[in-house]
Amino acid sequence: MKILLTNDDGINSPGLFALYEEMKKLGETIIVAPDSEKSAVGHAITLSDPLRVTEFRKNGEFFGYAVNGTPADCVKIAFWAILNEEKPDLVVSGINLGANTGINIIYSGTVSAATEGSMLGIPSFAISLNTFTNPDFRFAAKFARKISPTLVQKQLPAGIALNINVPAVAETQIKGVMVTRQGMALYREEFDKRVDPHNRIYYWLTGAKVKIEEQEDVDDRAIINNKISITPIHYDLTQYEMMNGLNNWNLNQLLDENED
Amino acid sequence: MKILLTNDDGINSPGLFALYEEMKKLGETIIVAPDSEKSAVGHAITLSDPLRVTEFRKNGEFFGYAVNGTPADCVKIAFWAILNEEKPDLVVSGINLGANTGINIIYSGTVSAATEGSMLGIPSFAISLNTFTNPDFRFAAKFARKISPTLVQKQLPAGIALNINVPAVAETQIKGVMVTRQGMALYREEFDKRVDPHNRIYYWLTGAKVKIEEQEDVDDRAIINNKISITPIHYDLTQYEMMNGLNNWNLNQLLDENED
Repeated sequence: MKILLTNDDGINSPGLFALYEEMKKLGETIIVAPDSEKSAVGHAITLSDPLRVTEFRKNGEFFGYAVNGTPADCVKIAFWAILNEEKPDLVVSGINLGANTGINIIYSGTVSAATEGSMLGIPSFAISLNTFTNPDFRFAAKFARKISPTLVQKQLPAGIALNINVPAVAETQIKGVMVTRQGMALYREEFDKRVDPHNRIYYWLTGAKVKIEEQEDVDDRAIINNKISITPIHYDLTQYEMMNGLNNWNLNQLLDENED
Repeated sequence: MKILLTNDDGINSPGLFALYEEMKKLGETIIVAPDSEKSAVGHAITLSDPLRVTEFRKNGEFFGYAVNGTPADCVKIAFWAILNEEKPDLVVSGINLGANTGINIIYSGTVSAATEGSMLGIPSFAISLNTFTNPDFRFAAKFARKISPTLVQKQLPAGIALNINVPAVAETQIKGVMVTRQGMALYREEFDKRVDPHNRIYYWLTGAKVKIEEQEDVDDRAIINNKISITPIHYDLTQYEMMNGLNNWNLNQLLDENED
């Protein structure tokens, strides 16, 4: 099996290393990851700057390719340039420090890399651990390794990736695997307004989730229940029901010259 | 009517100014836009750097607030800090230089700003003009102004934004308004490999769409047919059909200790 690994925390992050330690048991791994942290970059790609690819060494050995771009850039350049369009069997993005759930996944570089893989028709998943402190990535890494053969054998339909979130509890406390949907709970955001030493105002974005839905099959709820959350995601943003609604709005009337 | 305007081409771009010139006829406009071009930033937000808000003047007069962040940052900081949580009646993002159609919309800062508006429960749309050269934004701006009262009166359902693309032809050649879905045609991407004056390799991302779907209701096809394309979009990335598929995969088996 040939596996492409990436992330958004950067090529030197412990979550990626833990993932690599497990995934290399399955076959050949190719690591192409951002050269620095790229959290919350969403599905950004780099068009205005040149991309550079550097060989990155870890513990004295070649570890992977560091790219001065986003996670989505990494998957693109891996496939189209580094691998010369030879498809890996699997794309795995992570292990992210902190969950990627709910409306937040639209901001996630980790998830966007898996989406890029699915756009190339490669079985792909993102995997995140639900903690920011004292992370122990080992169980999540093992789960990534264990689910991988299934994804390759069953071949996820083109255009679908999996977004996997793992509770940060001991393996013995894990209560199962739950197939989930993306939670839709909104955040209450705040901007912390401060004054810098030069007397200029600046803001830090902060946010707190208001209320997580109660349904068991919501991604955040699964994690609270100590279950591994697996959400199938795609990149078709069309809201199909609303197409009918809009067709009843007689929008062609707007082009009537008398309506200027 | 109180209208928030933003874009991803930057606060000084002609597309935003053309939009402003029309939208101000409807009521009070507040402009909060990136201080420089932020194309292809996708749904990025700024967590690691402080955001600064600067009053931007144009032709000697106050024009709007420039933010050192992304389009999504601009909508967030506009609502939560600048407007003190007073909801505008409408969020409009654009007019973008170049269409935002097909799979590319996941990379679009313009579209992400409209999505942010819809997350706040505000009727929101993105508007883009299908050209990169010699843009004449006037008709697109007029259309933005003309569709706005409809959106405010009919109140788009929460969580849905409109992605509007306008053909770059004379108004008399416009063949109508088409409600569309996001095209799914893939791109053939290339990385143009070059050597810099210091003998280091770098890459530019380039890409060409392989083949646009034939169906009339695909966003790109509407534009080719000289129709204004309007796609309802949302930010629920869940692929619901696949939830059933995954439930048949017996993923709980992976937790069996004998399967290590």
